[in-house]
Amino acid sequence: MSALVSVIMGSTSDWPSMKKACEKLEELQVPYEKQVVSAHRTPDLMFSFAEEARSRGIKVIIAGAGGAAHLPGMVAAKTTLPIIGVPIQSKALNGLDSLLSIAQMPAGVPVATVAIGDVGAANAGILAAQMLSSFDEALAERIADMRKKSEEKVLESSGDLV
Amino acid sequence: MSALVSVIMGSTSDWPSMKKACEKLEELQVPYEKQVVSAHRTPDLMFSFAEEARSRGIKVIIAGAGGAAHLPGMVAAKTTLPIIGVPIQSKALNGLDSLLSIAQMPAGVPVATVAIGDVGAANAGILAAQMLSSFDEALAERIADMRKKSEEKVLESSGDLV
Amino acid sequence: MSALVSVIMGSTSDWPSMKKACEKLEELQVPYEKQVVSAHRTPDLMFSFAEEARSRGIKVIIAGAGGAAHLPGMVAAKTTLPIIGVPIQSKALNGLDSLLSIAQMPAGVPVATVAIGDVGAANAGILAAQMLSSFDEALAERIADMRKKSEEKVLESSGDLV
Amino acid sequence: MSALVSVIMGSTSDWPSMKKACEKLEELQVPYEKQVVSAHRTPDLMFSFAEEARSRGIKVIIAGAGGAAHLPGMVAAKTTLPIIGVPIQSKALNGLDSLLSIAQMPAGVPVATVAIGDVGAANAGILAAQMLSSFDEALAERIADMRKKSEEKVLESSGDLV
Amino acid sequence: MSALVSVIMGSTSDWPSMKKACEKLEELQVPYEKQVVSAHRTPDLMFSFAEEARSRGIKVIIAGAGGAAHLPGMVAAKTTLPIIGVPIQSKALNGLDSLLSIAQMPAGVPVATVAIGDVGAANAGILAAQMLSSFDEALAERIADMRKKSEEKVLESSGDLV
Amino acid sequence: MSALVSVIMGSTSDWPSMKKACEKLEELQVPYEKQVVSAHRTPDLMFSFAEEARSRGIKVIIAGAGGAAHLPGMVAAKTTLPIIGVPIQSKALNGLDSLLSIAQMPAGVPVATVAIGDVGAANAGILAAQMLSSFDEALAERIADMRKKSEEKVLESSGDLV
Amino acid sequence: MSALVSVIMGSTSDWPSMKKACEKLEELQVPYEKQVVSAHRTPDLMFSFAEEARSRGIKVIIAGAGGAAHLPGMVAAKTTLPIIGVPIQSKALNGLDSLLSIAQMPAGVPVATVAIGDVGAANAGILAAQMLSSFDEALAERIADMRKKSEEKVLESSGDLV
Amino acid sequence: MSALVSVIMGSTSDWPSMKKACEKLEELQVPYEKQVVSAHRTPDLMFSFAEEARSRGIKVIIAGAGGAAHLPGMVAAKTTLPIIGVPIQSKALNGLDSLLSIAQMPAGVPVATVAIGDVGAANAGILAAQMLSSFDEALAERIADMRKKSEEKVLESSGDLV
Repeated sequence: MSALVSVIMGSTSDWPSMKKACEKLEELQVPYEKQVVSAHRTPDLMFSFAEEARSRGIKVIIAGAGGAAHLPGMVAAKTTLPIIGVPIQSKALNGLDSLLSIAQMPAGVPVATVAIGDVGAANAGILAAQMLSSFDEALAERIADMRKKSEEKVLESSGDLV
Repeated sequence: MSALVSVIMGSTSDWPSMKKACEKLEELQVPYEKQVVSAHRTPDLMFSFAEEARSRGIKVIIAGAGGAAHLPGMVAAKTTLPIIGVPIQSKALNGLDSLLSIAQMPAGVPVATVAIGDVGAANAGILAAQMLSSFDEALAERIADMRKKSEEKVLESSGDLV
Repeated sequence: MSALVSVIMGSTSDWPSMKKACEKLEELQVPYEKQVVSAHRTPDLMFSFAEEARSRGIKVIIAGAGGAAHLPGMVAAKTTLPIIGVPIQSKALNGLDSLLSIAQMPAGVPVATVAIGDVGAANAGILAAQMLSSFDEALAERIADMRKKSEEKVLESSGDLV
Repeated sequence: MSALVSVIMGSTSDWPSMKKACEKLEELQVPYEKQVVSAHRTPDLMFSFAEEARSRGIKVIIAGAGGAAHLPGMVAAKTTLPIIGVPIQSKALNGLDSLLSIAQMPAGVPVATVAIGDVGAANAGILAAQMLSSFDEALAERIADMRKKSEEKVLESSGDLV
Repeated sequence: MSALVSVIMGSTSDWPSMKKACEKLEELQVPYEKQVVSAHRTPDLMFSFAEEARSRGIKVIIAGAGGAAHLPGMVAAKTTLPIIGVPIQSKALNGLDSLLSIAQMPAGVPVATVAIGDVGAANAGILAAQMLSSFDEALAERIADMRKKSEEKVLESSGDLV
Repeated sequence: MSALVSVIMGSTSDWPSMKKACEKLEELQVPYEKQVVSAHRTPDLMFSFAEEARSRGIKVIIAGAGGAAHLPGMVAAKTTLPIIGVPIQSKALNGLDSLLSIAQMPAGVPVATVAIGDVGAANAGILAAQMLSSFDEALAERIADMRKKSEEKVLESSGDLV
Repeated sequence: MSALVSVIMGSTSDWPSMKKACEKLEELQVPYEKQVVSAHRTPDLMFSFAEEARSRGIKVIIAGAGGAAHLPGMVAAKTTLPIIGVPIQSKALNGLDSLLSIAQMPAGVPVATVAIGDVGAANAGILAAQMLSSFDEALAERIADMRKKSEEKVLESSGDLV
Repeated sequence: MSALVSVIMGSTSDWPSMKKACEKLEELQVPYEKQVVSAHRTPDLMFSFAEEARSRGIKVIIAGAGGAAHLPGMVAAKTTLPIIGVPIQSKALNGLDSLLSIAQMPAGVPVATVAIGDVGAANAGILAAQMLSSFDEALAERIADMRKKSEEKVLESSGDLV
């Protein structure tokens, strides 16, 4: 089945975080693709990628970037697909710069921002699935199952407080 | 037609911002509902609201809250629908507290966070429409039209730099 | 004797910090219980826990959570018992997000916030005891003794400045 | 009936905020007293106030201060009563300095910190009442009633979203 | 004479600040042009603008933007001309978001960032002139004259301290 | 010769930083004493220390503390001697809390705040000497010599840039 | 009598704050002078001012500046007199930039930093007097009197809490 | 060929970062020189360096400094050459202090600020070359080549996402 979600990132150095998004998509059986697309080093690729994404059947784009993180917002400017932005934890400012660069988009071009770092990347995968689940009951159930398992794990964990 | 998007907020004092979300939904002809639901003052309503949203046909929930903003994240914990969180600009910390309380969700329960304040609320409306547009070509075209008008407005505006 | 203080936390990963609260409660001979309760992964457990706490004889609840830390505030929304919130030190933002998510509660639903991390957790245990001590003279004396020992330790420590 | 809660503040300029604490205590019928006590301008008064509070029958102290806010923490150092600290919204840094000066107390001497400004002051009054309510069922019911009224007000407010 | 400096901004609402850059360029007799170019609303214009700037004889580009400010960095990605980025003072976060979105560029694509707001815009005009002055002695002298006048104004101003 | 400068700190854990102050005082031949004095654990000692310092011949007090750092400001409230406050680098917030708790003193009771951590402690020693040097020409010369050596070290260091 | 304290500032726009320093010096009968000296616009004046201050009989320098506030630190680099730095409240960042630019001096060249804005300026005047008071008993008594009056004012103010 | 770019830094401890600037200048075949110049420890050297730079044929100055980073701004005050400021990552505040001390310059004396740390230093080298490239076509081509190589490296890197 062709990819419904496209996971892009500005650099291979973002992969250890962005891999978490892919793992969640796999766990939820959502077909996805992954690619390095840099706003600043491959701006033309970024634009053609964004322009063609909808016609290629992509439904949601997950974009991770750090520092002055322009990738999610610029892809958002070139497509009307929903974009999920993952603020990569940066070296000096720990991702606060990434978070503000992604979340504080101007009126007209939203980016769905998640938490800084690995946790945010994992949640980006789940959020993409949740968007699709509004139109896919089987997927909605798989997400509900994932939640249930997580709940059970917590319920059993109080015994570990020793 | 029954509502596809539900716009909720913690207090009527959030309405001046959250109204912007509703205006965008109207402009894009997306059926929506609106309601005050407070995480801290009506927690039971919040839970029943979240539990029933999917079965009522809601596809996306937009939740606005300020300060220690728990509404978006707690609704997210009780439904697998995608939640868009709007950080209301707070009095003392200008919405930085709202932003962090909404964006920094733990693994497993994402919230799609937008910008602080009115701009973020307007973008929440558009983002909800973009999520739906992945499965609604006519809506995708209306969003593209909105973008085109915005682009034209910018293209004509250089003459105003006097 | 049945527990007067309930120590809860969002995850077993919070235990190394929250253990400090328990140690202080033990040192002050305050009966307590401990449990993992997650706002986002076990919301229903959280609500039933909060609803039943007062009738079970609990007098104070200590709740630790990190990032978009909703546990203390949501428990506070479901009980009129005093809640002490411990902001766990988060990975990217070092607990500033946890602190703001817990301290900046809206009017009507307070959380007694302590310092970020281990120090805050230890202090949460002492603060719970102090609340009880207003109605328990023996406990007040045990706290005063703990203070006195701490004072003596400082008074003797100048010799270590070499 | 003699005061159970003492509301102190560093300056009369803090009164517009701290008045909110008193209003809540009145609404909940908790006997209280109020006084200006400055850590930096009346340090001796502060110490004698703190030393005598417990023997005067005070059960909880609410202390408001702004900027390098030392009043709550220093009173806490001189009594084993529970201290609630209210970070007054400061001019330059909007109360972030007040919040950190109050919340980040070292191990051994906790302060129960609430939100910055008026909201925090109101919540300090409620929190003090909640601490007392663990040993006063009638007060617990009055707090529950206050909550119920607040809930009802929210439930009726959706009609105002026009 | 054709423009050597191009002053662009994301919106006409940035003009009150960006006008200061133009005023300094005029004062220093540096030929310039000005235009609204939005990264998010006119991405294609932005790219063609950046691609053609050097061949049109432009030597320096000044770009102002606020919030998640992507314009300076994205123009920088599409030309090898030096780009000066002006962080416009944003509403909620006072330009801290703008500053970080512009300054924290990744390796390979620098932006010369100036101060937040009007002061930064004025300085952007001067900085552009300084870059040109390395190859234009007459301009270097005009800048030195401007400095001298500013110095004299300060030297005479102590009499105003009354 | 009896001590002119008193170096105090809230805990032996501050000693690795505060030792830098003592080293500078020794290098400049300024007689000093050192002691652990905790605002929160030994408040009475702190008050008697501050009250007696001037009559004991102390001319300047250096006080180091971290987190909600109340020691410098509270000592300042109890003596009219000049107080130098050293913000110790705290665990979660890296000393930003210490800095604000020390620098943001209210009108009437100043603290001379230096940089966070070891650098600030070293500078506190030098600053104390500079205060004394206004009335001690020999000391002024020793400080000038220290500066000269530092200058020479820099002048010779360019050769190390390899 | 010739000036013992020199009050300088980067611009006449800093005067409304810096005037508070002068008022306190007058109240305490400390002879002072005042002057505009700009680090960036009159660097040569700044250097000659700093070089000559000690020989002119100045004992303490108070320097106010905002934003990238370099005046206090650069004057400190050119004299061994003690420098008190006043962080002027800046427009965009409310003086946080001023505070960090002044307080975070490198090892070897301290600046005695006070609070942001008017309060800090007033305290700078008092702090300068405190430095002198270590060698001037009459001045020490005048400062003690000022404190006493301030204390009395607080002691009488509780009646105003209505 | 004599140096066109001068790379200065406040201390040899800044060299590991500042070396990145030199490496980029070498890669782009821009003749440069390097030197330790400290604003606070060698203020006279700093002034003479800045005064003579233009007449020595220098076209751009790159200055790196950390903490209360005054070097870039003070050199800018003493020459009309364009100054690029590199905020060195500081110990306690991770370079946020360095960034604000460099970027927030007052009107009249701009500094071209780049990112915090190694990345910023590398970009400073490229930015200096870009400034020169406006008047040097061969250099412009070398920069374009560097960009192209960087682009190609990204285009090939998606295969590494495993």
